[in-house]
Amino acid sequence: MNQRKKQPEQTRKVILDAADYEFSLQGYSGSGLNGIISRAGLTKGALFHHFPDKRALAKGWIEERLAPAIDALWITPLDVMDSLDFFRNFCRERFTGLQPDDAVSALSAVTAELAARDEVLGEALEDVFTTWRAAVAGLLERGKSSGWIHPSIQPANEAALIVAAFVGFSVTAQATRDPEIRRLAFTALDAYLETLRAQ
Amino acid sequence: MNQRKKQPEQTRKVILDAADYEFSLQGYSGSGLNGIISRAGLTKGALFHHFPDKRALAKGWIEERLAPAIDALWITPLDVMDSLDFFRNFCRERFTGLQPDDAVSALSAVTAELAARDEVLGEALEDVFTTWRAAVAGLLERGKSSGWIHPSIQPANEAALIVAAFVGFSVTAQATRDPEIRRLAFTALDAYLETLRAQ
Repeated sequence: MNQRKKQPEQTRKVILDAADYEFSLQGYSGSGLNGIISRAGLTKGALFHHFPDKRALAKGWIEERLAPAIDALWITPLDVMDSLDFFRNFCRERFTGLQPDDAVSALSAVTAELAARDEVLGEALEDVFTTWRAAVAGLLERGKSSGWIHPSIQPANEAALIVAAFVGFSVTAQATRDPEIRRLAFTALDAYLETLRAQ
Repeated sequence: MNQRKKQPEQTRKVILDAADYEFSLQGYSGSGLNGIISRAGLTKGALFHHFPDKRALAKGWIEERLAPAIDALWITPLDVMDSLDFFRNFCRERFTGLQPDDAVSALSAVTAELAARDEVLGEALEDVFTTWRAAVAGLLERGKSSGWIHPSIQPANEAALIVAAFVGFSVTAQATRDPEIRRLAFTALDAYLETLRAQ
């Protein structure tokens, strides 16, 4: 009985895994439902039972795969940080680790592709950015309280810039073959992060 | 005779205009050759005479439409600048003017979509970014010579960050309905630009 109850959940998981692979690599327009079904090893009926159309599947992917991946990369790790040097090292690791198919690149690509054109998916994507910015702003706010971030800093502003910069890095790095040139931008961001320090 | 010679060039222009409209709005995967042909009011044969396939058309679009548009927005205007305040105001205007279908948004979207996956188009896109970064770095270099940019500034690093930040803004702004939240990121960038000033 338990076994049978679990099946729909397992099917949903398999569908979202396949959607994650396709949407992360090919974007929304570039991914076909047929490719996702074939990767999942399921029938169209099984897919439509869980997600009535491609948009519903993309919304499920954003909420149940993309958002948790951003959470794991950018939100949970901030909880334990207690110094600007820690945060700068963390940003350096996140920058060095950028890959064309990682969650930040997938989020950037799908937002660039459709956030302005699709209200439902745009709102789901906006939620991911709002949570990401709030986590960075929360860290900087704690830094102000603990005395390692300058009191004049406005955490919400800096968080919005830091998130935009990482989105921009994830895009421009894909067009830049030379890793040395990729690093230039991070060197400048790192110098900017240093300006947030309490004197 | 002159009239007849001009026709192929006119046809090419009409094709690139239609491609510009479709690629800017729908991205690469989202744009079909049929839609471009129908918008251009031409036959498939006329299109294939100028561009053998969709990739060749996208390369033509990047080189002959997207690159000149970035040039007009971000490169030519820098020639006449002679102060950090002028550049900060210019950045503010470029930020305020960001639109989901403008050249920076189109460049960001198509780069996020395919720069890492398509070597030919990736190189064409890399050229656009290289030229854009070089123009910003050149301005900052002139600022150092003229004494309005701090001598310790590394223009290539700052230029890479400024370009990445604008790409990031063009993406995140599309997922952010509230114009006030969009402005927070620019306020932080503006404060960062101020740190480049010669003391």
